[in-house]
Amino acid sequence: MKTEISTQFKKLQDQICSGLEKINTHSKFSEDLWNRPGGGGGRSRMLSEGKVIQKGGVNFSEVNGKTPENILKSLDIPSSDFYATGVSIVIHPVNPWVPIIHMNLRYFEISDGTYWFGGGIDLTPHYVIESDGVFFHKQLKLICDRHDTSHYRQFKKWADEYFFIKHRNESRGIGGIFFDRLSSEEPNKKGKIWQFVLSLGNGFLPIYSELISRNKDRPFTKTQQDWQYLRRGRYVEFNLILDKGTKFGLDTNGRTESILMSLPPFASWEYNHQPNPESPEAKTLAYLVKDFDWITHD
Amino acid sequence: MKTEISTQFKKLQDQICSGLEKINTHSKFSEDLWNRPGGGGGRSRMLSEGKVIQKGGVNFSEVNGKTPENILKSLDIPSSDFYATGVSIVIHPVNPWVPIIHMNLRYFEISDGTYWFGGGIDLTPHYVIESDGVFFHKQLKLICDRHDTSHYRQFKKWADEYFFIKHRNESRGIGGIFFDRLSSEEPNKKGKIWQFVLSLGNGFLPIYSELISRNKDRPFTKTQQDWQYLRRGRYVEFNLILDKGTKFGLDTNGRTESILMSLPPFASWEYNHQPNPESPEAKTLAYLVKDFDWITHD
Repeated sequence: MKTEISTQFKKLQDQICSGLEKINTHSKFSEDLWNRPGGGGGRSRMLSEGKVIQKGGVNFSEVNGKTPENILKSLDIPSSDFYATGVSIVIHPVNPWVPIIHMNLRYFEISDGTYWFGGGIDLTPHYVIESDGVFFHKQLKLICDRHDTSHYRQFKKWADEYFFIKHRNESRGIGGIFFDRLSSEEPNKKGKIWQFVLSLGNGFLPIYSELISRNKDRPFTKTQQDWQYLRRGRYVEFNLILDKGTKFGLDTNGRTESILMSLPPFASWEYNHQPNPESPEAKTLAYLVKDFDWITHD
Repeated sequence: MKTEISTQFKKLQDQICSGLEKINTHSKFSEDLWNRPGGGGGRSRMLSEGKVIQKGGVNFSEVNGKTPENILKSLDIPSSDFYATGVSIVIHPVNPWVPIIHMNLRYFEISDGTYWFGGGIDLTPHYVIESDGVFFHKQLKLICDRHDTSHYRQFKKWADEYFFIKHRNESRGIGGIFFDRLSSEEPNKKGKIWQFVLSLGNGFLPIYSELISRNKDRPFTKTQQDWQYLRRGRYVEFNLILDKGTKFGLDTNGRTESILMSLPPFASWEYNHQPNPESPEAKTLAYLVKDFDWITHD
């Protein structure tokens, strides 16, 4: 089954890159193939300085070898081999009205038969547009509901917890869904989980294409661009301080350039920046909280 | 003695702020006084958009209360009270030829009588100018040698180890000196350590003033500024992923805006940026290694 999964992940990478290239004229993805010393490797695809996308990465990897110590410890199992494959995407758009998007889908298995799926998709608007937030969450719920009607509620909550910047007391963005260690003791359930993960992957391009097409041609000011850079600064804080995937990758000597492709092309920090209370920037901050219900909102 | 230390740290903050304001015309430090819920507080002083300094923080703090759990654990002592005071400085200059500088001096004591000093000063040039590096390290050695002729060698090595960005396999800059948990069983030694720490503090302004005056009026190109932003990106990576002070501050609910004052006004990340082998940028990278001997170099 792992061959089926990695094959589909590669197809997904192809499909998303070619879809984004159609939207983002004047710049194409370039590919770096890399090998992991311990086993396996990946296809990193990066795009920069496009008309719509300022910096974007759509990465595939498939690695194997001796299971890292911290995983063995957390599972309380003896030394064994692992296999992991995944797709990881972060897109930083040019226009501050277009949101940053992130998706990660991953499959992990150990030679003793243990396996799990993990992943998620979440949105980080520089300016929260309510109708876009409702659209985004409703689309995710539609995908989830086709597989399990408890998924959306459960995984939306998980995303709210995960994508929270504690030291700022604010969410990274408007969340989405997040799940980890999705597995089952029942043999026939594995295929069901995989179908859900794949559906989510197939949802990425239509959802983000819609959000791009709604906003990519909106005019923006220097003030709005400055705000975009500040929000990207928060994105950096989340990814470097809190993101478990980033930490795991760097701690296990993963490929630094692929792991840190998530960092923005340009970001800024201003001491104690406080937007005016009635400004659009302050209104955006008010949405960056846990437990905002986007489904019943419109 | 703690009153003496905190009084001198405050004087140091005053002296450094007023010295930097003289160099950096057109922009002054603004002050935020803050209180820590558990006890104590601080004076954060920030400057932005100056002619020489784009963003700089010169912070003083003096806090006390129940000793944090992780410190009790690492010292293997029962619950007790602590007192900590320190000065922390990070300066991001406008001109890429002027280096970023960082200094931190701190004193920590516990109600059972345990105490230690920690700190250091290190330089992060965007472009390494060899004569400036030699000047910087010789000045630090002069200060160290007045107190203990083994200090420079020992603390320079410590800085090389500490300010190393493992996932990039490069040093943050050209190092300097770094030390932690400096203490002594002999009662009359405490004053000696303190005199060393204070000398280092007093060395900051003349050393950095010289480096500024040598370079602040050098013309620079867009390419050089782009490189400055990339180097600042690495500075962000060090501070958010590796710096123990930042991690400790955020983990113990310190004042986020004061802790993250070290982050640059603008930074950038470019996927897999590789300077041309013979370029000034590549030459700078060649200096960002451990164990470069700046003292015998000229």
